[in-house]
Amino acid sequence: MYKQRGEKLWYIPDGYIPETSSGDLTSHESICVLNTSSEDALLEITIFFEDRDPMEKIMVVVGARRTKHIRTSSLQQDGMPIPVGVPYAIEVKSDVSVIVQYSRLDSTQAENALMSVMAFPIQ
Amino acid sequence: MYKQRGEKLWYIPDGYIPETSSGDLTSHESICVLNTSSEDALLEITIFFEDRDPMEKIMVVVGARRTKHIRTSSLQQDGMPIPVGVPYAIEVKSDVSVIVQYSRLDSTQAENALMSVMAFPIQ
Amino acid sequence: MYKQRGEKLWYIPDGYIPETSSGDLTSHESICVLNTSSEDALLEITIFFEDRDPMEKIMVVVGARRTKHIRTSSLQQDGMPIPVGVPYAIEVKSDVSVIVQYSRLDSTQAENALMSVMAFPIQ
Amino acid sequence: MYKQRGEKLWYIPDGYIPETSSGDLTSHESICVLNTSSEDALLEITIFFEDRDPMEKIMVVVGARRTKHIRTSSLQQDGMPIPVGVPYAIEVKSDVSVIVQYSRLDSTQAENALMSVMAFPIQ
Repeated sequence: MYKQRGEKLWYIPDGYIPETSSGDLTSHESICVLNTSSEDALLEITIFFEDRDPMEKIMVVVGARRTKHIRTSSLQQDGMPIPVGVPYAIEVKSDVSVIVQYSRLDSTQAENALMSVMAFPIQ
Repeated sequence: MYKQRGEKLWYIPDGYIPETSSGDLTSHESICVLNTSSEDALLEITIFFEDRDPMEKIMVVVGARRTKHIRTSSLQQDGMPIPVGVPYAIEVKSDVSVIVQYSRLDSTQAENALMSVMAFPIQ
Repeated sequence: MYKQRGEKLWYIPDGYIPETSSGDLTSHESICVLNTSSEDALLEITIFFEDRDPMEKIMVVVGARRTKHIRTSSLQQDGMPIPVGVPYAIEVKSDVSVIVQYSRLDSTQAENALMSVMAFPIQ
Repeated sequence: MYKQRGEKLWYIPDGYIPETSSGDLTSHESICVLNTSSEDALLEITIFFEDRDPMEKIMVVVGARRTKHIRTSSLQQDGMPIPVGVPYAIEVKSDVSVIVQYSRLDSTQAENALMSVMAFPIQ
């Protein structure tokens, strides 16, 4: 049995999916989750906006002893993706403890730019 | 009723608004705040400098269950904005717990560069 | 005798070795470790994947009162390196407390991009 | 009297001063310190290397209610600066609590790249 590591609730205030890409790479964001335990983790993701109610209960599974780098553009609620070009924020709730990092590749200009933060954990 | 998450006092030592932009995008910094609770959050922002007294009591509201990505160039005290091309630091005080991240897009050269950090929380 | 500082277990969910480089610099990632103590630190690194079992027990020594910036492309298990172009995650276990930061230089396009995070510590 | 905020001991494992610059901007790193208190802060900086003994007791003052963005290229011990093109790590000790962030601008290629992390605090 491998131990759970990390926390069950994480936040990322600065989410943003660029509207356009121009280089060889496509602009994207990833929510990178590591599940060190022997049990699968069921994530429940909530997306907060500046001017409308949150998108709730987006479910994702991260297997036991696996990582998953989740493209935010792949997340959907009732077939609706997260809108592009709009500031938002992310809550990740998990039934087992996990570690969460957020990274963005922005290629809206000719060359790519990168940023990454560890998400903020709630104990 | 949704719970407050995070802390009520956050710090970002490395603030800087670039003087010029040269690509399709405008250089900017954002203080990204997430308020998960059922109450509006009233932020009180203080700006510290290297060689002069702080700018105090810049007030911003973040609605209940909303995020706000605040451009630092939009912040004003008595009609005066934060000066450009000058190193500064940021304090964010809130009456309800929030989560704070800071990001900078620098487009002073032809291509953009990105950086982001979670602000430092005080319990 | 100098004190140990930091923690003995650290995680980095977003690992990725780019497949190609195109500028003057070679794309690379580094796991940057600081050992402030008077004793050498023996690190045991585990690499987690999305779709296969972890690579375990990659051993690295960081000398007393020394830092080591470890290129992930130099890590091997039974002569096998970490595969390129594949999302992964990193666990760093140490027998003495250390501080761990992760940085990536991406030069897959003409100009380089940088990202860096402090790894997530487990107490 | 304004309160001290933050911690008295901080670490940054990934220090690096690029050897060359090529754009309009000069490559540089900054240790960004915020002192929220009513007393001046006296910092004692130690630089750790991969293959030699640390440079110790580099002293810097950060005024009361002031920030200071310290260029690492300006730090000296007995007239010797931190060598360029060499991996190193940073310890910042302060007599009053402060908050410490580290940022790097890399302009070794035509366009600049940025990274930033909050330093790791020891309580």
